Amino acid sequence: MLRFSTAGESHGESLVALVSGLPAGIPVAQEFVDRELWRRQQGYGRGGRMRIERDSAHILSGVRHGKTIGSPVAMTLANNDWKNWTEILPVETGDAEKHKAVASPRPGHADLAGALKYDFKDARYVLERASARESAARVACGALAKLLLKSLGIEVGSHVIRVGKAELGRDASWAEIAAANAKEEVFLNCVDAEAEARMKAEVDVALRTGDTVGGVFEVVVHGLAPGVGTHVNWDERMDGLLAQAVMSLQAVKAVELGRGVTAAESMGSTVHDAIAYEGADEAFTKFSREKNNAGGIEGGISNGEDVVVRGYLKPISTLRRPLASVSFETREATKAAYERSDVCVVPAAGVAAEAMVALTIARLVIDKFGGDSLRELKRNYDGYCEQIRNF
Amino acid sequence: MLRFSTAGESHGESLVALVSGLPAGIPVAQEFVDRELWRRQQGYGRGGRMRIERDSAHILSGVRHGKTIGSPVAMTLANNDWKNWTEILPVETGDAEKHKAVASPRPGHADLAGALKYDFKDARYVLERASARESAARVACGALAKLLLKSLGIEVGSHVIRVGKAELGRDASWAEIAAANAKEEVFLNCVDAEAEARMKAEVDVALRTGDTVGGVFEVVVHGLAPGVGTHVNWDERMDGLLAQAVMSLQAVKAVELGRGVTAAESMGSTVHDAIAYEGADEAFTKFSREKNNAGGIEGGISNGEDVVVRGYLKPISTLRRPLASVSFETREATKAAYERSDVCVVPAAGVAAEAMVALTIARLVIDKFGGDSLRELKRNYDGYCEQIRNF
Amino acid sequence: MLRFSTAGESHGESLVALVSGLPAGIPVAQEFVDRELWRRQQGYGRGGRMRIERDSAHILSGVRHGKTIGSPVAMTLANNDWKNWTEILPVETGDAEKHKAVASPRPGHADLAGALKYDFKDARYVLERASARESAARVACGALAKLLLKSLGIEVGSHVIRVGKAELGRDASWAEIAAANAKEEVFLNCVDAEAEARMKAEVDVALRTGDTVGGVFEVVVHGLAPGVGTHVNWDERMDGLLAQAVMSLQAVKAVELGRGVTAAESMGSTVHDAIAYEGADEAFTKFSREKNNAGGIEGGISNGEDVVVRGYLKPISTLRRPLASVSFETREATKAAYERSDVCVVPAAGVAAEAMVALTIARLVIDKFGGDSLRELKRNYDGYCEQIRNF
Amino acid sequence: MLRFSTAGESHGESLVALVSGLPAGIPVAQEFVDRELWRRQQGYGRGGRMRIERDSAHILSGVRHGKTIGSPVAMTLANNDWKNWTEILPVETGDAEKHKAVASPRPGHADLAGALKYDFKDARYVLERASARESAARVACGALAKLLLKSLGIEVGSHVIRVGKAELGRDASWAEIAAANAKEEVFLNCVDAEAEARMKAEVDVALRTGDTVGGVFEVVVHGLAPGVGTHVNWDERMDGLLAQAVMSLQAVKAVELGRGVTAAESMGSTVHDAIAYEGADEAFTKFSREKNNAGGIEGGISNGEDVVVRGYLKPISTLRRPLASVSFETREATKAAYERSDVCVVPAAGVAAEAMVALTIARLVIDKFGGDSLRELKRNYDGYCEQIRNF
Repeated sequence: MLRFSTAGESHGESLVALVSGLPAGIPVAQEFVDRELWRRQQGYGRGGRMRIERDSAHILSGVRHGKTIGSPVAMTLANNDWKNWTEILPVETGDAEKHKAVASPRPGHADLAGALKYDFKDARYVLERASARESAARVACGALAKLLLKSLGIEVGSHVIRVGKAELGRDASWAEIAAANAKEEVFLNCVDAEAEARMKAEVDVALRTGDTVGGVFEVVVHGLAPGVGTHVNWDERMDGLLAQAVMSLQAVKAVELGRGVTAAESMGSTVHDAIAYEGADEAFTKFSREKNNAGGIEGGISNGEDVVVRGYLKPISTLRRPLASVSFETREATKAAYERSDVCVVPAAGVAAEAMVALTIARLVIDKFGGDSLRELKRNYDGYCEQIRNF
Repeated sequence: MLRFSTAGESHGESLVALVSGLPAGIPVAQEFVDRELWRRQQGYGRGGRMRIERDSAHILSGVRHGKTIGSPVAMTLANNDWKNWTEILPVETGDAEKHKAVASPRPGHADLAGALKYDFKDARYVLERASARESAARVACGALAKLLLKSLGIEVGSHVIRVGKAELGRDASWAEIAAANAKEEVFLNCVDAEAEARMKAEVDVALRTGDTVGGVFEVVVHGLAPGVGTHVNWDERMDGLLAQAVMSLQAVKAVELGRGVTAAESMGSTVHDAIAYEGADEAFTKFSREKNNAGGIEGGISNGEDVVVRGYLKPISTLRRPLASVSFETREATKAAYERSDVCVVPAAGVAAEAMVALTIARLVIDKFGGDSLRELKRNYDGYCEQIRNF
Repeated sequence: MLRFSTAGESHGESLVALVSGLPAGIPVAQEFVDRELWRRQQGYGRGGRMRIERDSAHILSGVRHGKTIGSPVAMTLANNDWKNWTEILPVETGDAEKHKAVASPRPGHADLAGALKYDFKDARYVLERASARESAARVACGALAKLLLKSLGIEVGSHVIRVGKAELGRDASWAEIAAANAKEEVFLNCVDAEAEARMKAEVDVALRTGDTVGGVFEVVVHGLAPGVGTHVNWDERMDGLLAQAVMSLQAVKAVELGRGVTAAESMGSTVHDAIAYEGADEAFTKFSREKNNAGGIEGGISNGEDVVVRGYLKPISTLRRPLASVSFETREATKAAYERSDVCVVPAAGVAAEAMVALTIARLVIDKFGGDSLRELKRNYDGYCEQIRNF
Repeated sequence: MLRFSTAGESHGESLVALVSGLPAGIPVAQEFVDRELWRRQQGYGRGGRMRIERDSAHILSGVRHGKTIGSPVAMTLANNDWKNWTEILPVETGDAEKHKAVASPRPGHADLAGALKYDFKDARYVLERASARESAARVACGALAKLLLKSLGIEVGSHVIRVGKAELGRDASWAEIAAANAKEEVFLNCVDAEAEARMKAEVDVALRTGDTVGGVFEVVVHGLAPGVGTHVNWDERMDGLLAQAVMSLQAVKAVELGRGVTAAESMGSTVHDAIAYEGADEAFTKFSREKNNAGGIEGGISNGEDVVVRGYLKPISTLRRPLASVSFETREATKAAYERSDVCVVPAAGVAAEAMVALTIARLVIDKFGGDSLRELKRNYDGYCEQIRNF
């Protein structure tokens, strides 16, 4: 079973990423993992922290001689900012004088709810873990999932389809998305230059006004065989698992599969993807579709089309022009505390969502195909692909 | 730990619902469970099946002398239609002549993907389990979760905010929702008569044209203390768990928390819910909010406001005027198979989603407060409520 | 993922058994399941209950036309005694006058600990679920696991190696065990007539003196390929999973793999199973062993030898000549309550343990080999067997 | 939910230990964790590795200002030997010339089964993870569980009751065990000097003859309230969970609760612990026992007596005078590979088992009592203790 978990505080020594259940024999190139981490740090509208950190995964275990060996892969991601926080936030008791309290909870963050829950006098201990910095560890985990999927010919990418009021407004092909993801410079990760310019204008407004802006990213899984995920149990359905995976990302407040939001306004005859029998030779099966409104999932099962998952990102909760809040100490009205932050993170959230989607798909792939070595996994996958080709 | 699972085919002898992890001592009234099942069967635009079945939960275990006893609660829901299917779909080998094949997969359903996955010659075995009939078992499980929550003063309800192009277009208060859910006749479960009339017109179009129509429901959890769910692990966050729970329902293709979709088009200053210190005496805490754009969840934790979850429902995939498909046998173009079905199920899907939300919240409540007896759970919950009141 | 659960009280309407995760296409013969249930009810030293119940699994779902269809299999096992308990132990509130309290907790049972935990005024609600009657539902689940394993050539059986002071005192071959399990009459399920006679004498003493007697059963898995289970995570090791599975059975107080107990008294040179390269053509691999002290598991992984698991059963806790206890009401010394019970259940416990072992092995097999249809599972398993044959 | 996992190879850079689900506010002293690690490294009969490593937990996350903060605790344990292995076993591809193959599998280890399973050309990648070095990470996790339990007055200790043929042969009181565990010098961790001398003689034989020797340790949980664990589901029973936890330790081949092994030879009247009503004022309840044959667990639930778990340890599988094996390359008979190893590790295995038992009990305690802060957990626990005192 593929499992992963993360640990680490935003200003602690390092993040920790742990992935277990990868078959043995998957080639792991450090550069690939680091490039994924780099992609998460890019985008127009990022704040100062991104200039401090240049993430790199330090692999401690589970990879030897450049390949996975079946045992859990542990990685650390050093927080470069840690050197400025060793006295503020030490593991040991330390000097209470040097502890910096978060004076008032920030609306939109876990600050207040977390302080009540964990019985904290201030919100520092909450925001250290609730921060989207944590998603860097997920990206490191996701990079390994991507390597696994890649060995079966399955790819995962993302692009931005909306920033504030500016939207892409058309479909993007897999080739366009793949090209965008391969770029050496990331702007707003939109496949269309004109739309990207409109998106930039939205960020500029936010920058100028001390505000933040949300948006929508789309993650696409390309090359996945039909039959992954299942309808038989609610908690094994691909749709539900993807929804959890993406909604669990910081600031995501809605998740959509295919044309989910507009489907709800529509008649069935315009929504469902008619079935033909004209599949290309290289397709998984001769059964074919012209449209993909379903986003590649029917009844909780992949249907062979691209899996399309969209995440709706609220604007970052930390504003340079802070919102109204209450002082923890005096209980009087004040402004929300300010931690250095970003203004727009839609492209980065898309990269984090790729990781979550890749981990989810990889888990379901391993559930269905088993395999302790890459050789075994591939043999099983290929055998199944042949079976359905002859269905 | 609260767990639940379901079993059963749509035209088999019965559905099975299993809930484990309820504390002992919760009063269980059969009528309450059956009323929930009845609510799921109502609504304008339902098909013939609803006239055949009148669900009732037959409790086999886990409840004695009218109260839970800590052991798993198993329930069966008889399928009245079973008597017509004993020869078509027997457990035993039976007479192959009497087996009715599904000749062509229906777009939008699990039919094709499931047949490929499970290596079936036809889609009967898939649709029997993929059918939304299964959600009746979830509703039975959810009824128990609601009884648990009710004993702590937590309530769960739903209403319909869109059918096709017709939307409610305004906020609904908890009182309105509760009143709608208490009605003895369910139409489209909209809190506003004028909007409901517009919704009916949408259904009428679908009925007239042999089509189906989608919509949006909203589930609200009222009276939940802040601090349930957590930011510390991606798979323990309330937002992700709710997204999975609701997305796993048949035909749901998008899930939204609070104002998730419109938040993505907005600036942060208009989205986040400012914090004041004017909470009413009966509130969980003096910290208060004027708005609830967050849908009661910040950082994966309940914040004391109503939890608001919306599900976007695609139109039912089975159309009286069937979509294009392919014959399993001849591989030639044909029409999709037709199984008797509904035209609009948004209100019913809302009831099923209430169940999934109630089960999710109940699970998190039990995770946080523990307790093997209702007395113990209440003592723990009350102790915490007092703690945060004095925070 | 293979999962199973049970529900039901000892004197309720029925037990419920639920198995999810079986591939589609496994032939399920009712007679096989029922024979397993029958085997669990046999043995010298059983009490009156066994004469009342003749278990039969009523399959509600997941099997159609004689084969599994991928969806969860739900079964009920009617409690014939229920007709005598409908007023004593109804689901509904019922008539309090007709409720039969358990006046004093029985040492060795969950009675006292359970009453404290769940805040019960008497132990009835505890013992109804804690009773070993529950293991009948496990046997029904295990029967399906056995059918899965059988389709891969893997068999599971058990025999009794000790009753009280009487022990078998020699090894048993798989052929002997299989023959014992195939018998139409079960006495003490010992492969050696002379030893069985000594065992009977032990039971006779207990019968005569109003006492009960314990013993040791051995479960053997025959024909399992090496490489199932793993050393990489503590909670995925076959040794730990088997230990939990068997220890979780009522009255089991120790679990041993291979020669585990005597190995602890020994020097390494006499314990470990030397490796040669003389495997038979039909063996999984040419690497071979002369001994199997390891019980077929090294480092948490199957090594291709028979998997051997022993369960140490304490004597049944309910004695005809009851132990000292305390009245719940008066808190004065009294005798423990007496529920009709057995005197020796070692053979039956072995059958229940076979079920738990089969379920555990089947889960690990599915984890490793995947497969949604029997065809896919077999192809994957066969591919792996060929791989290791050519290692 | 309390969860933990480990990562790391025996000769990699470091082990990783991850614990999630600890309430906030538990004081964590580095010295305590390190002392537990030190205890695991002690004992008469340890090999050279123990002289190289002096384990210390480096806490990366989850602890701030000396207390847990609710988020996952990640720790690394540096392998001092790593500096000698950076070229032999690098994460990167490295220089194949410098790779040291394990030429032949060692009987009793995962070597052969693991190589077949993961499709490895030699067993290096298997033994790196299968090595009992991994248990150091478990001990670090367990130290945190112990700190949690300690805050509720629950203690966990262990002692050695057998080494080879030499056994303690009498009961040990909790005071004796606690005193043995507090010692600044660890010999064989036996509470009785005379028995310890006999145990030493067994180790001396093994040392002299190039052999290894097994033994039995006993872990005791002292001060745990009755009612933890449950009978209602097989996979939530304390007995099964403890069995898995301890059996999953390297070289453990049998697990016993209380007098489990001898109970199987006995009559019920001598085994079950009669119930009286003479509990001391400071006891959890007035219900009392004179004996504790059950090992503190009845029906899968703690009963208020000391929980007693015994692990049977086979002799270490690596012998200085190696066993017969087969060359991976030539497939001819040879001697098993030799990795520097220990001769007797029963005391150390006991310390590792303490960790596993503490983690299991802590998980069940958190399941039952909930609580996100130590204050909340204690209030819930105290409330329950008062409830059962007044039962």
